Amino acid sequence: MEFSSKLLERAVNEMSQLPGIGKRTALRLVLHMLKQPKEQTTVLAEALQNMRNDIKFCKSCHNISDVHLCEICSNPNRDETLVCVVEDIRDVMAIENTSSFKGLYHVLGGKISPMDGIGPHDLNIISLVNKVKEGKIKELIFALSSTMEGDTTNFYIFKQIQDYKVFTSTIARGISVGDELEYADEITLGRSIVNRVPFESSLKL
Amino acid sequence: MEFSSKLLERAVNEMSQLPGIGKRTALRLVLHMLKQPKEQTTVLAEALQNMRNDIKFCKSCHNISDVHLCEICSNPNRDETLVCVVEDIRDVMAIENTSSFKGLYHVLGGKISPMDGIGPHDLNIISLVNKVKEGKIKELIFALSSTMEGDTTNFYIFKQIQDYKVFTSTIARGISVGDELEYADEITLGRSIVNRVPFESSLKL
Repeated sequence: MEFSSKLLERAVNEMSQLPGIGKRTALRLVLHMLKQPKEQTTVLAEALQNMRNDIKFCKSCHNISDVHLCEICSNPNRDETLVCVVEDIRDVMAIENTSSFKGLYHVLGGKISPMDGIGPHDLNIISLVNKVKEGKIKELIFALSSTMEGDTTNFYIFKQIQDYKVFTSTIARGISVGDELEYADEITLGRSIVNRVPFESSLKL
Repeated sequence: MEFSSKLLERAVNEMSQLPGIGKRTALRLVLHMLKQPKEQTTVLAEALQNMRNDIKFCKSCHNISDVHLCEICSNPNRDETLVCVVEDIRDVMAIENTSSFKGLYHVLGGKISPMDGIGPHDLNIISLVNKVKEGKIKELIFALSSTMEGDTTNFYIFKQIQDYKVFTSTIARGISVGDELEYADEITLGRSIVNRVPFESSLKL
């Protein structure tokens, strides 16, 4: 792609560094900015820089926060003996949206993935193990995605904490609410049979 | 969508102002930036701001340029009697990529579209008519998209310049090279029959 302006080329190249944004999309976005008032680009650029430079991570759960201890961790109404282990802050947002969880979270920041060069020490695992060692946690819920990497990460953490007195669970795998049985994959359908729940408890939600 | 940080929320909101970027995509992009070094976000923010504040438009053809007269307009090897009228700088880039056009361009900056509140005076039409009045242009090629708005814009410009001595043409509509006839729409196929070209001239490209 040949550009008639170096400034345009640089902006397009930088935008196309973002995941899922190719050169053509980047050009479309940048040309859109050119049609908008200058202030709008300034506001966007400042919002991105402020976010990148000033954002903090909660010192307890590693969720993104504007203060040292995030709103969830500092909320006295939440059950601090119940901790849900997630991969990403997006998972925290997704679970919070359901309003069905009243415990705390622990954000790992990824999954163990040797193929991508991500080992246990690149994730927030030590602080989780330390929390378990302190003995405050009664139950740890693993809510990682059920991929090879997710299962590996679950198992690694499980091995680290198995000598301590803590109950571990994983979120239920099964047929999505509203889905047709015949279209479900065999593993999911199999698990949903093996891990069936009493009918009365399914009436609660 | 509830955010655990105001800085994050603001960055996501600003990113999602861009066309085709929803809140979820914006969040994915912003979280990606958080995983990259801070410098990368600074470079992106600066590239966008420099582009928005310092970019110039060629005073002759209205193409984006770093100088007052763009490289194409200032190139003595190009035929200034032949002008191709396009909607957008992306069209200039697309035609330049073919290396088959040696004339100059005129970028309108859009199409006449009453539905979107875009009238002739929002586009670079007056400067085009003035160029024609000066008598330097021998042929004007309309290369707008063949939509209602494109046809309206072509016709509006044609009406403005019909009293001056200039030959007007439009780019050929027809079956794309490599396409199967049976899948072409009737209008395109019809036009390709009516506007057939001598066989020998089709051998040139």
